[in-house]
Formats: sequence, structure tokens, C-alpha cells
Amino acid sequence: MISGVGLIGGSIGLALHRLPNPPKVLGIGRDREKLKRAQDLGAIDAFGTTWQEVLTDNSLVVLCGPVSTIASQAMAAWNQRKGFSIILTDAGSTKQQILDQIAQDELLASSFVGGHPIAGSEKSGVSASRADLFDGRRCVITPSSLNSGSTISQVTEFWESLGCQVLEMTAEEHDQALAMTSHMPHVIAAILARSVPEQLHEISAGAFRDMTRIAGADAGMWHDIFLSNQKSLENALEMIAGEMLNFREMLAKKSSNELLEWWNEAKTKRLSLEHRNLEKGHASEQV
Amino acid sequence: MISGVGLIGGSIGLALHRLPNPPKVLGIGRDREKLKRAQDLGAIDAFGTTWQEVLTDNSLVVLCGPVSTIASQAMAAWNQRKGFSIILTDAGSTKQQILDQIAQDELLASSFVGGHPIAGSEKSGVSASRADLFDGRRCVITPSSLNSGSTISQVTEFWESLGCQVLEMTAEEHDQALAMTSHMPHVIAAILARSVPEQLHEISAGAFRDMTRIAGADAGMWHDIFLSNQKSLENALEMIAGEMLNFREMLAKKSSNELLEWWNEAKTKRLSLEHRNLEKGHASEQV
Repeated sequence: MISGVGLIGGSIGLALHRLPNPPKVLGIGRDREKLKRAQDLGAIDAFGTTWQEVLTDNSLVVLCGPVSTIASQAMAAWNQRKGFSIILTDAGSTKQQILDQIAQDELLASSFVGGHPIAGSEKSGVSASRADLFDGRRCVITPSSLNSGSTISQVTEFWESLGCQVLEMTAEEHDQALAMTSHMPHVIAAILARSVPEQLHEISAGAFRDMTRIAGADAGMWHDIFLSNQKSLENALEMIAGEMLNFREMLAKKSSNELLEWWNEAKTKRLSLEHRNLEKGHASEQV
Repeated sequence: MISGVGLIGGSIGLALHRLPNPPKVLGIGRDREKLKRAQDLGAIDAFGTTWQEVLTDNSLVVLCGPVSTIASQAMAAWNQRKGFSIILTDAGSTKQQILDQIAQDELLASSFVGGHPIAGSEKSGVSASRADLFDGRRCVITPSSLNSGSTISQVTEFWESLGCQVLEMTAEEHDQALAMTSHMPHVIAAILARSVPEQLHEISAGAFRDMTRIAGADAGMWHDIFLSNQKSLENALEMIAGEMLNFREMLAKKSSNELLEWWNEAKTKRLSLEHRNLEKGHASEQV
């Protein structure tokens, strides 16, 4: 059962349909036209617009909507499960706020294991879905002490069945890490896109294009992510501001050796990232 | 005549050899092995290691070495021209410092027109050269009041013959613009590459990869560029720091409307860049 059949939800459906024995994949959402499109694309087998229509016993519910809606979607599904046994996971880019909200219902919390597949694109919508979106990508899951081993295993196996390698972290660790690797870089990309006047675009090259690509992403989605990971994002931005100050001092001193060492440390770390991606065959991935 | 046959110098040689009546392209440098490799790749027809060996009457000299060496290379060529008539241009990423140094010799300054083709790559060396590197790209030239119209025309025609569209700017305008579109983004990319711990690489995705790609570039080259464009780079970084502060205040206020508008302005500008690139067929360029 996929709630929110956009890029991520659609790709989950396509990935499930690659399995030797694909499960029946149901979609739930508000917009019948979008759901129909997802069905036409082969991402879901059938769909409904209410939990009553789509919930069955022993279903795994994957919540793929915006992070601000995941906890309430989880509660809605939970409250309409009518004695069915269900397990829930999500694909939200932040975890702590969702877990805090879900913790209000201990039974729900015991059946919910937060997830975050580290894959995506600045594109959105089901038409950008790809069956191989998750292949070889990490999926972080953030189990809590309320989850049973069996619930955690089922959620782990679900993400693995899509092609992910599953990593366990606490929600706090996840949010701090993602603030650094994703949320803060998105802020920086938007700042660059906003700050460079359009009349200078014609004398920009690949540097500017690559550094701003992710600023083309959906505003609502990133608004939610920023607000739901405020503290870690604030810390990450503070660190970058400090590094900018360090650089400006180095530049003011015209300290050649320091500048060279500084850049070479960046280069070494960047090359280790590239090396890792090459090893994993991700050199030319778009996401 | 190409001085410094690396990525840019080599690509100039390859582009010249595509012309219906290719000129004889000579290379000059210190390292005979590198020059031999450039010859084997078809970038240059012959080479020497002293200006005396390679200079002929009516030659156009293109200086493609690191920005810190361009003025002294120009002076060396000028002082060994033995009555030959020569015109000089360069491919350096900053212009004001070079022009200031060259202005010490008025005759040289009248024969030198600064150039900067807006094309490149995080790769370096002649083996990364491409005949089409300049196709459809802008080349900024920064003529001074000492240059005659005929000198400016010859330099313009030279860059156009490589596939560039030539734009005239003052050296100051150029350096301010490039600080924004290229030099500051390189600093930011290096800061990101340095700041994110390597153990988080496995949970990073395309955002982090794209935002740090240019941190893989050559340390010496960027050291030179930063130091030769200190003031404009400092101003650009100050502006980014101010924008980061604005964002942090907006986030602290949890101001949804402001955040959405803020992101949408970034997205609109980014889409206009993409649209321009698509129109010019640059969507998949690597540089």
C-alpha cells in the first residue's frame, strides 16, 4: 500500500513489480487522476481515495507524502485499520519530528518504523519514477524501542526488496547527518541560484549549473524538510558560515601554503566520494 | 602559438585544427614530454621550449598557463620578439591583476587583449582536451584604451574561430562577475567537500555529489585564481554569508510564506538558466 504516488511512491511501485512474485500494490491519495496515471505507468495495480477502500489485513503501508503529512497519514491509516494487522514505514527526508508525533499513540508507534531511502531527484511526480531508483542506494531506518524485532525485520526486508541496502540509525543521528549531506546543500544551492543575477547566466559554466541544479526542486517539499529539521539545519549552516570565515581570513593573509592545503583536503575528500561511487557503479546516476 | 598546452591550450589547438585552413599551431612550455603528448594528440604541429625557437612574425600568442604566470609569460614573449609583430591574448580566469602587471610596458599592453573563454572542467591536462570545448561558449575579452581597433578585431576573430561568442567587458566587470558565477561557487564546493565527514558519504546522494564536483579541480590553479581576485571574491562570499543569515532568520521565525517565496525565487532563476542551456544545446555538457 503506497500513500502518495509521486516520484518516490511511483518508483517503489515500479520496483515492487520487478520482483519474481510481485505483491499486489495499492495506491491511496486524494487525486484520482494522478492515481490513474500511476496505474497506467504500472506503478500500482489499483487505487482508492480512502483508507477503508484500500486497507487489507497484513498490509505494509508506505507513506510517501510530504514530511509534514506523514504522521497524520499514519494516524489516519491506523485509526481505520478495523482490527487488521498492519505495519507502517515512510520515505520522509526527516525522522525525529515524525517519530515524536507518532509516539502519541504507543500502539501505532510500535507498528511504525521510520525509513528514508537516500535517493531522489530534483524532478517530482509519478512520471519521473524509475524502477531502479533504489538500486544499491542506502535506506536508513530508524527503529524505536517500541518496535518488535519482527516488525523491524519486515520493514528491513521491504526496503531490501526494492534494491536498497538498509542502515539502522537513531532518528536524531539521521536528521543530523542528512542536514549535512542534503538539507544544508539544498539551502546553499538556492542561495546561489537566488544571488547570481540572471544577466550573468550567460557567462556561467558547469560550476554554477551543477551547484544550483537541486534548487529546481519542489518548494513545498523543501519547505517541509527545512521546518522539520530546523535545529540540525541551523547547526550545519553555522558550521558552513564558520568555514567561510576561516577561508576569508586565509585569503586576507594571502597564505599560499594554507590555501593549497585547504583546497587539497577538499579535493582528497571529494575524490574519495567519487571513488566510492565508481566502485558502486553510481558514476553517472542522476539522483 | 600556444603557451601552456593543458586542457585549455590543448582544446584551442584541437579547435584550430578543425578549421578549413588550419594555421600552423606551435606549442611552448618547459616540459618536452608534455609537449610531445600534445603533438601526438594533434593539438599542436610542433613545439619548442624557448620563445626564440617558436616565435615568428605576425604570430598570435595565446597564454594558457596558470593566471599567476600569464603576465610574466607575456613579458618574456614580448622581450624576445626581435622586431616581429605579435599580438597576445590569454585564457586566464581573472583579468585585472594580469592587465595591471602588463600595463607596466605600454607597448606590450597595446598588443595584449585579455581573454577568458567560459569553458573548462574539473579535469586538467592535455589528455582532457576536446575540439568542441568552446563551441557556443562565451569568451569574455577585456580590451583597454591602449588597444587599437585592429588588435581587438584580430583577437575577437581568433576566439570566434574556436567556436566562441565574444563579449566585451572591462577587466573589473569581468572579475566581479566571475567571482559570483565561478570563483565563489568553487570556494563553497570546497567547503562542502571538507565539512561533510567521509563516513557520511554513504548516505549522501546526487545533491552532495553535484555540489562538490568542482572541488576535484587543481589546487594550484584555484589558489592562483582566488589570490588574483581577492576583493571580488571577498565581496561575493560576504553576500552569501548575508543570505545565509537571512535564511536562518526566516527559519527561526518558521515563516512558511517567506520560505516558500524564497525557494520559489531560487527555482524560477534556476529554471531560467536551464532553459537557456537547453536552447543552446548545453543540457548535457560536462564543463
